[in-house]
Amino acid sequence: VILEHIKGLISSPGDFGGIKVLVTAGGTREPLDPVRYISNRSSGKMGYALAAAAIQRGAAVTLVSAPTSLDPPAGAELVSVETARQMYQAVMERFSTQDVVIKAAAVADYRPKIVADQKIKKSEGTLILELEKNPDILYELGQRKEPHQTLVGFAAETEDLEANAQQKLRKKNLDLLVANDVTQPGAGFGADTNIVKLFYRDGRTQSLPVMDKKTLAHRILDAVIELRYPGNS
Amino acid sequence: VILEHIKGLISSPGDFGGIKVLVTAGGTREPLDPVRYISNRSSGKMGYALAAAAIQRGAAVTLVSAPTSLDPPAGAELVSVETARQMYQAVMERFSTQDVVIKAAAVADYRPKIVADQKIKKSEGTLILELEKNPDILYELGQRKEPHQTLVGFAAETEDLEANAQQKLRKKNLDLLVANDVTQPGAGFGADTNIVKLFYRDGRTQSLPVMDKKTLAHRILDAVIELRYPGNS
Repeated sequence: VILEHIKGLISSPGDFGGIKVLVTAGGTREPLDPVRYISNRSSGKMGYALAAAAIQRGAAVTLVSAPTSLDPPAGAELVSVETARQMYQAVMERFSTQDVVIKAAAVADYRPKIVADQKIKKSEGTLILELEKNPDILYELGQRKEPHQTLVGFAAETEDLEANAQQKLRKKNLDLLVANDVTQPGAGFGADTNIVKLFYRDGRTQSLPVMDKKTLAHRILDAVIELRYPGNS
Repeated sequence: VILEHIKGLISSPGDFGGIKVLVTAGGTREPLDPVRYISNRSSGKMGYALAAAAIQRGAAVTLVSAPTSLDPPAGAELVSVETARQMYQAVMERFSTQDVVIKAAAVADYRPKIVADQKIKKSEGTLILELEKNPDILYELGQRKEPHQTLVGFAAETEDLEANAQQKLRKKNLDLLVANDVTQPGAGFGADTNIVKLFYRDGRTQSLPVMDKKTLAHRILDAVIELRYPGNS
């Protein structure tokens, strides 16, 4: 794995020179009240590894990040957000000037319909929470995408990975989808490693072995370069 | 503030020798499905500072911690939990052998009634989430408390701090309640400082100035010693 990583670094220094890359990372938080929120198990490690790898390879990187406990990579323009709607706004404002957008964040599909001004006090019995849908950032990006732009999405699945991934790739108009079964040991949220399958726009798929997220970040960037400059690799 | 801290360290080394202290910390996570959960803004800093301070002063410390991004203090027996029910079980199993219990964790009052086995897929329209009440750990501890045990609770309030704190102190049968208005700058969740008011069992109250959480931890332990050995301080 270390050799792979070093090879990646040696074989492709500067191949992202002049390319503007926007990466989203972390899990959004959707407040119920001033102290409580709905979130997810995303640690932000995959997105931060992608941002760091793209910087190493010469890209101008914007990192739109939901809360994480990670230090942002040096050299990235960091845009900190909390909710899905804040992430939507931050990404949409910047999309038209980007060449590559990699949506590694785990964005909440739903948010509480009502956000209480004050901390909700305990009361007897059950509590009913009504959730409404958040904007679908990846779908919007797929609709607005220009021919020079490369759009990469992630899918964290717990069942029917292949079918769900193929459907997401088409529906969101992606160039590349990185899918992982988060129920596998060594894959997904919180882990330092990941086990993914790449789904390309042209129908190709590629199953990668377990690898650390830094190495995987370079593999994903290799795939982006190949998509942008076919035949060069 | 630094002088206060040093004074605290010098004047009270070993005053917790032979005392068993259980501290809870962090914010519990209540799963909706394998990837999503409800949580809160607790960073765990206050609880970890209390555990570290008690160790410094000679206590045998058990730290029951919900997820945080902090390193546990050296010397504590760490019990990692995720949900309110796991925390309930971990604390109840250990309560009878403890002398002092400090409940600094932010425990979810409610959990989703149904936890989905698989990741909930997006669908059209709104989503209704039914929440049911979690066990009230602090109330249970107050009921079971023996005369030799000291029970300290926290209250994070966004309104009516005084009234809510007095009510909680009595209802939960606490010896000391540490209340803070989390809407104040420099107070509460995520911050390195806190602004609190102490409510004692005998009706006394004490408003403390803004101070870092490590210093506050020693102040709270000072109050515990005073409650356990009245007239000694």
